[in-house]
Amino acid sequence: MENASFVLKDIKSVVIEDRPKPRLKDPHDVMVHVAQTGICGSDVHYWQRGRIGDYVLSGPMVLGHESSGVVVEVGDKVKNLKPGDRVALEPGVPCRRCDYCRGGNYHLCGDMIFAATPPWDGTLAKYYINAADFCYKVPDSMSLEEAAMVEPVSVACTIGKTADLRAHQTVLVLGCGPIGVLSQAVAKAWGAKTVIGVDVVESRLEVAKQFGADYTFSPPRVEPGEDPIAHAEKVANLLKEKFNLGEGPDVVLECSGAEPCVQLGIFAARRGATFVQAGMGKENILFPITAVCVRGLIIKGSIRYLTGCYPAAIDLISSGRIQAKKLITNRFKFEQAEEAFELVKARRQDVFKVMIAGVDY
Amino acid sequence: MENASFVLKDIKSVVIEDRPKPRLKDPHDVMVHVAQTGICGSDVHYWQRGRIGDYVLSGPMVLGHESSGVVVEVGDKVKNLKPGDRVALEPGVPCRRCDYCRGGNYHLCGDMIFAATPPWDGTLAKYYINAADFCYKVPDSMSLEEAAMVEPVSVACTIGKTADLRAHQTVLVLGCGPIGVLSQAVAKAWGAKTVIGVDVVESRLEVAKQFGADYTFSPPRVEPGEDPIAHAEKVANLLKEKFNLGEGPDVVLECSGAEPCVQLGIFAARRGATFVQAGMGKENILFPITAVCVRGLIIKGSIRYLTGCYPAAIDLISSGRIQAKKLITNRFKFEQAEEAFELVKARRQDVFKVMIAGVDY
Amino acid sequence: MENASFVLKDIKSVVIEDRPKPRLKDPHDVMVHVAQTGICGSDVHYWQRGRIGDYVLSGPMVLGHESSGVVVEVGDKVKNLKPGDRVALEPGVPCRRCDYCRGGNYHLCGDMIFAATPPWDGTLAKYYINAADFCYKVPDSMSLEEAAMVEPVSVACTIGKTADLRAHQTVLVLGCGPIGVLSQAVAKAWGAKTVIGVDVVESRLEVAKQFGADYTFSPPRVEPGEDPIAHAEKVANLLKEKFNLGEGPDVVLECSGAEPCVQLGIFAARRGATFVQAGMGKENILFPITAVCVRGLIIKGSIRYLTGCYPAAIDLISSGRIQAKKLITNRFKFEQAEEAFELVKARRQDVFKVMIAGVDY
Amino acid sequence: MENASFVLKDIKSVVIEDRPKPRLKDPHDVMVHVAQTGICGSDVHYWQRGRIGDYVLSGPMVLGHESSGVVVEVGDKVKNLKPGDRVALEPGVPCRRCDYCRGGNYHLCGDMIFAATPPWDGTLAKYYINAADFCYKVPDSMSLEEAAMVEPVSVACTIGKTADLRAHQTVLVLGCGPIGVLSQAVAKAWGAKTVIGVDVVESRLEVAKQFGADYTFSPPRVEPGEDPIAHAEKVANLLKEKFNLGEGPDVVLECSGAEPCVQLGIFAARRGATFVQAGMGKENILFPITAVCVRGLIIKGSIRYLTGCYPAAIDLISSGRIQAKKLITNRFKFEQAEEAFELVKARRQDVFKVMIAGVDY
Repeated sequence: MENASFVLKDIKSVVIEDRPKPRLKDPHDVMVHVAQTGICGSDVHYWQRGRIGDYVLSGPMVLGHESSGVVVEVGDKVKNLKPGDRVALEPGVPCRRCDYCRGGNYHLCGDMIFAATPPWDGTLAKYYINAADFCYKVPDSMSLEEAAMVEPVSVACTIGKTADLRAHQTVLVLGCGPIGVLSQAVAKAWGAKTVIGVDVVESRLEVAKQFGADYTFSPPRVEPGEDPIAHAEKVANLLKEKFNLGEGPDVVLECSGAEPCVQLGIFAARRGATFVQAGMGKENILFPITAVCVRGLIIKGSIRYLTGCYPAAIDLISSGRIQAKKLITNRFKFEQAEEAFELVKARRQDVFKVMIAGVDY
Repeated sequence: MENASFVLKDIKSVVIEDRPKPRLKDPHDVMVHVAQTGICGSDVHYWQRGRIGDYVLSGPMVLGHESSGVVVEVGDKVKNLKPGDRVALEPGVPCRRCDYCRGGNYHLCGDMIFAATPPWDGTLAKYYINAADFCYKVPDSMSLEEAAMVEPVSVACTIGKTADLRAHQTVLVLGCGPIGVLSQAVAKAWGAKTVIGVDVVESRLEVAKQFGADYTFSPPRVEPGEDPIAHAEKVANLLKEKFNLGEGPDVVLECSGAEPCVQLGIFAARRGATFVQAGMGKENILFPITAVCVRGLIIKGSIRYLTGCYPAAIDLISSGRIQAKKLITNRFKFEQAEEAFELVKARRQDVFKVMIAGVDY
Repeated sequence: MENASFVLKDIKSVVIEDRPKPRLKDPHDVMVHVAQTGICGSDVHYWQRGRIGDYVLSGPMVLGHESSGVVVEVGDKVKNLKPGDRVALEPGVPCRRCDYCRGGNYHLCGDMIFAATPPWDGTLAKYYINAADFCYKVPDSMSLEEAAMVEPVSVACTIGKTADLRAHQTVLVLGCGPIGVLSQAVAKAWGAKTVIGVDVVESRLEVAKQFGADYTFSPPRVEPGEDPIAHAEKVANLLKEKFNLGEGPDVVLECSGAEPCVQLGIFAARRGATFVQAGMGKENILFPITAVCVRGLIIKGSIRYLTGCYPAAIDLISSGRIQAKKLITNRFKFEQAEEAFELVKARRQDVFKVMIAGVDY
Repeated sequence: MENASFVLKDIKSVVIEDRPKPRLKDPHDVMVHVAQTGICGSDVHYWQRGRIGDYVLSGPMVLGHESSGVVVEVGDKVKNLKPGDRVALEPGVPCRRCDYCRGGNYHLCGDMIFAATPPWDGTLAKYYINAADFCYKVPDSMSLEEAAMVEPVSVACTIGKTADLRAHQTVLVLGCGPIGVLSQAVAKAWGAKTVIGVDVVESRLEVAKQFGADYTFSPPRVEPGEDPIAHAEKVANLLKEKFNLGEGPDVVLECSGAEPCVQLGIFAARRGATFVQAGMGKENILFPITAVCVRGLIIKGSIRYLTGCYPAAIDLISSGRIQAKKLITNRFKFEQAEEAFELVKARRQDVFKVMIAGVDY
């Protein structure tokens, strides 16, 4: 095949098909031979449901957006890269012209071209074209698998930067999946004094301990008939007492999207604390708004990648401060892509990050 | 009487009784002869229900906390005031020693002495003792009624400062009671480009137009059986179209505490906008948390007074930029204090701010 | 002539010559028929000396960069403009791809195309091509002269935003030329409590009073043999006493570039104050660095235009809060461009802003 | 002796004399038996010259302000400490009532009581009384020598916080004395990507390498007759090339106070960089103000301790991230205090931090 591509044809229907090799049009673009691609929950979501929020599948779409690769061709105006360079791919290229882009908030751009978000094709193909400034050269010492892991580490850096994390803070992280544990590791690398990881799955708490968590906590579930808000307050107090947190953590990073975790996080937070919502679950939840008001809390949403987070993630991985590779539990050939997706869909507790090799890798 | 005081003896039971004239103990304190006191919703709340959140009436308590007065005695170490000075009283004195106080966030101090918050007596008495640095001298040109209005204007400044209001922004204010319209006026005085006031009571929208609102909006109520979230989204879009707000306001100030207003505000806000929760209503509400996440919103609670807001409010009133006096609709003698409280309790649409004169005023 | 242009051929040598009408190449660009152009000190500097800092005249260059005009042609991808739209031109288009641009600091971009900065041609021609997102539509009520004044008002907004100006501050402005008095006006429009304008030219102080200055001050000059630092400290204390500034202004905006003004500003500033250096004069000066250290001052350089400042300036002019037109003291036809430059060069005290009409205006 | 004290009687005249044991007056104070005291340049400065800036010796004064000790008595209202607690002493207690204190900037308080700053006695005595909230309990694992080192580490944290240091930055530190190398270590602990230490003394560069410096640099001195500004620019370019710094460091921490270092730092800094002046030398220097302007630099003075820096320093030392003890090169008994001062005065290259044991230690 010229350009083998893993295409979502329709809901629950994927196929590897050949597509024409793309051509560079914009002189600021480069073509990358994709080397490794991690699978993300959103990829599986499009596969199974055909939409996320306002983004609805409108035709066949290549999946994948957590990729690394090797540059094979560069546009006339590209200065920072040359063929042969090994890169991590930031998968969203903004318009560069709206107020968000010009104001340093390109992550909020309304005209972003984002890999594997309808109608834009993703990176699970032999070749992918990207803006040169959204391809980041990685050090020789970094493997292409690690370079694909730059994406989730960059998500974690974005969460941390959204929270305005500072050294010497106490940080509570809710949800110990890949993004949760990487957020813990980022907090620790940025100098956090104490990091506490919370999850109801014991095996995840074990991973959390290897990724920056000083303590882990498995919260009791709400009893049938128990008021969920009262439960959240009770568990928050339990947590604060157990780990001597005094007034509570300075920062809460919500990486689970679970309603009880959001509620727990609000009640655990100290007055004036920052709470970042990064996980996605139910669209609308029962929320203690008066607590937000009287405690002077700051709640912030985290989405995509803030400027500077890809380089930060490369620094964290290449310096050994975050051993992102240890999160990769399963590896597949490009031809096995559907099998890889099935594995992620199954949500097995022993599966953390699943990686698909590129064509010819 | 030596020191006539308006005392809440028990739930729904108030009385004017004589209390001993207080004595200065701390050399940094001053004694003030109270001149004017505005009534706030929280005063009425303690009167009718005996508690607000964790603060529970535990014995007789003098009511009132929005006051002005004249200094009658000063402690040995007081330099900024002398007897005869006319002052606005900031009613909460923090501990000055905790991390919040030392970090510039005294409004979050857990050991604050706050007038008319159990167990602390309020200002509806002839004499009130306050820390000298929480008594702000007002210009000769400002009346003592206006000086009592410094309190609600300072609340509005705190909301604006919490929102980090900037010139040239578009600001949506939900709820056009006293705090809502003063927040509009503050936004305008600080250079807002467009201010929109929202309320379901027509007479309040009329007041809003005099206090900084460029436009006003009366949102349609949710129909029986209609999904409240879908309704909120629909009304948000209606609002944005009607006033050509494009992506939506830069800032939302929620001053109503009403669940539908909170929901409306979240959906109206542009991506990356700041939303301040200042109104208090139901403790827990149905809240579009995913919208907060994907739109990168910032939600902040506003409580009490931020540092610098009393001087800012005095500047706004004394320079004529906010004509706070126009909000006073009803005036009572000290002896009529209970009558004044009954009026506020009745929630009549023509009643905005009710003022009680001090003893001998 | 097809495209009459006012060209700097060499140092001190200007001529009006015909140049081919330019053609749109980038689909995001627009062509503007230039209507009005203000003259700036930097234009005169290139004319007289052929260089500013690292920018050296390397061939003939069209002068001018403070312009308004009417759109005559738009590229294929332009959505925000159409032929006939009246616009203010922001004269610097950044690369959009470097870390500065992506981080919201395009004013620091090292690859900026800036009108009338070698080797880039300026706007004193019949036609000028600019990126569409750097052309700002002005309201019908705003004249094209006012639209040209958006440039200096935007410079003043940038100075103010660099200073992080807040309502209720005391602001000291050093130098009451066009940028100085507009900075005063911006400070006042953004809610400053007290603004003080300083200049040694009496006629400028008169203008200052019409542009936001509550007070003006003409500092005594240093005596022969007097230590300039001791003099600066003495004058700073004089200034603070005269206007009851207590510890000193919260913010100092240095718009003169004069060494004694910089020194005065440092000593006048209150501890922790922000001092913005916007004026340019001697490259190196005697500077009280220890005062900066022990007083915890913040010194910031202001250059070009921060994001959002063009829209802010349009808002200020169109709402009438800044009557920028009143600064225009002299008007010339396009054919008289050299005469206009001679007038600015003469630095007459009655000349504030000189405006050159576009071809056919 | 009841309370042996090391007293500066007059310029260059010190003596150990007995003073009455002090008594607690304020119920928020505690009395500490001083255990270890480091000597700082300012102590030596008062000893040799009798003044620093506006602070002039007006009578006998106990020296010393970098101390640890054990609590021997606590005031009635003290909750956080009890006799026997081992503490690090923050030597400046602010007024808690001025705008600086209330705004979170107590380091700028004009009424601070600061140990060994005229007229306030210092800590080189058996007993010292301090506000309880300025005494920080240290972990059992931390020695009292390390607890005295909290002071310089806290100075370094203040410099870093003033610079708003962030993870992944490139940080240039000028001057590798105790404060310089600790600032390097703080930068690294807070996640800096690259730290470069600059000094002209080779032995200091050796220490720098153990305290966070990835690279060190010994700048060539200015040649006789060479223009110092041109020299600074040349060396800045040399530095950037040698260490591949591209546009230059993100942050410059000036810890030497030397004029050539300030100049070098300004020219080395990337556009938009933050430069912190922490070192003190000549009061007035030749300063490239135009570079500050056109490069959009931010220059900030750092003085004393920002809120939260003592706890941060304790965290850094107790967690082992900064091995402050390694900086102590010389130890003296209390009786040898003058000898210790003589050693610091001699400025020997092998002397870093000199420690004086408390009475009975």
